[in-house]
Amino acid sequence: MLAKTTHRLVSRCFSSVSSKTLKVGDALRETRVFSSEDVEAYAEVSRDWNPLHFDPESARKAGFENRLVHGMLVSSMFPRIISAHFPGAVYVSQSLHFRSPVHVGDEILGLVQATALRETKNKFIVKFSTKCFKNQSELVVLDGEATAILPNLEMLKPSPSE
Amino acid sequence: MLAKTTHRLVSRCFSSVSSKTLKVGDALRETRVFSSEDVEAYAEVSRDWNPLHFDPESARKAGFENRLVHGMLVSSMFPRIISAHFPGAVYVSQSLHFRSPVHVGDEILGLVQATALRETKNKFIVKFSTKCFKNQSELVVLDGEATAILPNLEMLKPSPSE
Repeated sequence: MLAKTTHRLVSRCFSSVSSKTLKVGDALRETRVFSSEDVEAYAEVSRDWNPLHFDPESARKAGFENRLVHGMLVSSMFPRIISAHFPGAVYVSQSLHFRSPVHVGDEILGLVQATALRETKNKFIVKFSTKCFKNQSELVVLDGEATAILPNLEMLKPSPSE
Repeated sequence: MLAKTTHRLVSRCFSSVSSKTLKVGDALRETRVFSSEDVEAYAEVSRDWNPLHFDPESARKAGFENRLVHGMLVSSMFPRIISAHFPGAVYVSQSLHFRSPVHVGDEILGLVQATALRETKNKFIVKFSTKCFKNQSELVVLDGEATAILPNLEMLKPSPSE
């Protein structure tokens, strides 16, 4: 319950798009702060108990300031952002480059921007640039590209993240 | 608690490597069956409530037999397998191509094979081919490549997945 309360307090969920129909160039954003409880819950479901995520000493030995949030948990922001705006979106591919560490408590901005779009059989294949920034700086902690098949281009306003 | 019990019953965890020191060509494997509880737990922590994962009718409308396991949850097998054998491994990159749906109850074999390896500053940068197969067939449901920095090449025998 603590984790849920924390999420509600720290998460903001908004979109920067001005129209309701997705077009190339539109960007979807969401911010999130990952808590210790998030890291624990992700380790439970992924079974990834890498000590870098739990033991500060292990993290420091590897050259980090403190224990890390799982990179794949941070990456989950991208399909979350896409499917929150386009329920029923089908993920086709995602590339991920983990460029800088994410620690518990960092504020992460996830940015998903449409870079290409084509229609086929009444569905839409959309390529997105996907980036995460840290603590309101221009430091990219994670980037890559995603491709998804959207059932339509009408964007929903995402419901609160929790 | 039900989810944990289910995991213990259905998961098998083994490695196919014959030596204890990783070399190019070595393959690490693990199988897992994702349960409804896993999908729910992943949705909670990722906040990805895409109806494809919860509503069979939405999944069928999108052309699938039934509701899907989140692709990024299936993908979490790769860093899990790597870090279970090499605690302290740091993920650098991962590419993911979602080629075929994974449904609740499918048995997924995750296969991580070292394809390149070089030493730098007493650490090891290793490139892996990463694949998931479904239900003991040769059907690739997910593939890509990962790069990780390993603190050493000595493989641990992973502890039970739970």
